[in-house]
Amino acid sequence: MNFSFEVLKTDATGARLGRLRTPRGAIETPVFMPVGTQATVKSLRNEALEELGAQIILGNTYHLYLRPGHELIGKLGGLHKFMSWERAILTDSGGYQVFSLSELRKITDEGVRFRSHLDGAEHLLTPEKAAEIQLALGSDIAMVLDECIATPAPRETAKAALKRTTAWAKRARDFFLQCAGRNGDWRQWQFGIVQGATFPDLRRESARQLIEIDFPGYAVGGLAVGEPHDITCEMTAEAAALLPKGKPRYLMGVGRPEQIADYVARGIDMMDCVLPTRAARHACIYTSEGKVLIKNARYAQDQRPLDPACSCSVCARYTRAYLRHLFAAGELTAAILATHHNIHFYLDLLRQIREAIEFGNLAKFSSEVQARYAAGPA
Amino acid sequence: MNFSFEVLKTDATGARLGRLRTPRGAIETPVFMPVGTQATVKSLRNEALEELGAQIILGNTYHLYLRPGHELIGKLGGLHKFMSWERAILTDSGGYQVFSLSELRKITDEGVRFRSHLDGAEHLLTPEKAAEIQLALGSDIAMVLDECIATPAPRETAKAALKRTTAWAKRARDFFLQCAGRNGDWRQWQFGIVQGATFPDLRRESARQLIEIDFPGYAVGGLAVGEPHDITCEMTAEAAALLPKGKPRYLMGVGRPEQIADYVARGIDMMDCVLPTRAARHACIYTSEGKVLIKNARYAQDQRPLDPACSCSVCARYTRAYLRHLFAAGELTAAILATHHNIHFYLDLLRQIREAIEFGNLAKFSSEVQARYAAGPA
Repeated sequence: MNFSFEVLKTDATGARLGRLRTPRGAIETPVFMPVGTQATVKSLRNEALEELGAQIILGNTYHLYLRPGHELIGKLGGLHKFMSWERAILTDSGGYQVFSLSELRKITDEGVRFRSHLDGAEHLLTPEKAAEIQLALGSDIAMVLDECIATPAPRETAKAALKRTTAWAKRARDFFLQCAGRNGDWRQWQFGIVQGATFPDLRRESARQLIEIDFPGYAVGGLAVGEPHDITCEMTAEAAALLPKGKPRYLMGVGRPEQIADYVARGIDMMDCVLPTRAARHACIYTSEGKVLIKNARYAQDQRPLDPACSCSVCARYTRAYLRHLFAAGELTAAILATHHNIHFYLDLLRQIREAIEFGNLAKFSSEVQARYAAGPA
Repeated sequence: MNFSFEVLKTDATGARLGRLRTPRGAIETPVFMPVGTQATVKSLRNEALEELGAQIILGNTYHLYLRPGHELIGKLGGLHKFMSWERAILTDSGGYQVFSLSELRKITDEGVRFRSHLDGAEHLLTPEKAAEIQLALGSDIAMVLDECIATPAPRETAKAALKRTTAWAKRARDFFLQCAGRNGDWRQWQFGIVQGATFPDLRRESARQLIEIDFPGYAVGGLAVGEPHDITCEMTAEAAALLPKGKPRYLMGVGRPEQIADYVARGIDMMDCVLPTRAARHACIYTSEGKVLIKNARYAQDQRPLDPACSCSVCARYTRAYLRHLFAAGELTAAILATHHNIHFYLDLLRQIREAIEFGNLAKFSSEVQARYAAGPA
């Protein structure tokens, strides 16, 4: 067996310490996956990601399908070889980007027809196609195509999307099993995605239907898209309570530093978010004392590192005054240094969370992080 | 003595192998200095520059004076500490940028009055001020303020600029000696700049006048600004023939890969140019086989490194197909990888040139590089 998942410990909150084994190495969970949309985590060389200890990154199927194309990547040996990254990669299904980036979306039971945001060309993404693309990319974990709706949504809309998501999940699974298992050599795990908007009973229904299809792991999708954090947590908990204890759970697209432990406490094992990389490019630095908006004039002569408590190579060498100057001057180096630090912050936050689960003090750790971030940006 | 320069060998062409000692390490010459305009070599961390073996970089006084300001940098301990770079730094005088970037320049014998290209504020740059700024920056090598004129220029214009350049050089030297040598602790070397446009006799006259002022090193300025390469070489040779053999010679703002050896053969020891960094950001890759315009469709499936003969960390890991994709996708990582490689190419070119001088075959090496670059971009 190339893949496995093992829960090593569950604490009083429901948080799990686990280990996800893939053909490209073991991943300690809960894990944060830096986002590498277009076959690169923006402004970081892979060498930096390795130095930072990233064990798994995310690639966006929508972007890679449109450019450079999954066929090209497949022909060149798959995404790992194409981008020279030997550790694990999870790819999403492309669905979320079709719904958020593309034009002229038309959803039918067959799939979703859309125009590329790059050149306006028309494409049809079906559950089978999304699975096929991800097989060509050769990611370690692939996601099924789901229907993403805006929230708050009327119950009937959510119910219809749930129904379609389940039907698509079944088709995606059938297609995947037919293709991927052909020679008994499993090189990819395929996860289902729980939908149901903000309706607890629909979340439960979605989870039950996906469990019946039987995936090796499950994601919770369509959350953290604008609804209150309490609702995100509640919906996550509803789904997680039903999902099999021995399989990994992935909450898609989260979250802020002060929210991560809340999701972990709802039994989430995997997360991804563009926040650390995107915020870095906008001069927002995450530190142990809260956010530092480094362009602020108060940092002009500040000779401290971005975060005095941080052990990353940026904090070991460069000052806030220097970073502020680089941002003011519009230098690319600013994004490089800030991104490096922010990814370190997130990966380190998860290390601390894993340690807190180990020692049974996640709730205390979580309140401390929240208190530091409640004060707002410095 | 904190500084010294030693010519280790002169070959038949007039090329010199030398060693420039500074308080921040010894520099093997001929040397190429990567340009770090705004206290960073664009898109490279200092760690990368160290890995690449850069022994000295250039900072632009005009930019640093306007932002973040020499007083701020001085207060924070100087440019080396500000940008966390322990090796040598050469700063220009700001003159060239005033003439090329700023608005409403008004030149008088006192200095040059200009408006900042950033905010339109009026500033006066005098020979004394340029020296003062560079002392505050704490660069290892500082340049005197010179008058830069466009070429081709009428003889009378060139003559007047030469006269003013010499007068400014004298004032800059006096000011410098008064300030810098105060406690007998020489932390900076100040170089004069030979002007004279494209008139051989004016170049000689300028050199003689500067030699009389007595600098520890001399630059040749106002060249490679549009005139034919032959003229650049001729003017360089005219100046170099008169300059003291035991002192370093710096040809400012050059050059293309296939031209570097020509300048070295005219007795030049130091060079700087934005070309490798700027070209990299525009997807122009320098290789041992000539230029590679990596956005070209022919590289879409090219799994070779940028330069199969290159030993840099980018060529060791990434393919042309991947770089092409990163540029097509507008990823910052493209600039990071391309810049790293191009700087390696230049520093390695200089290593090969030093070796060619050592073994007495610079002319042969030079023709080989020219032949490879004559074919034009691939």
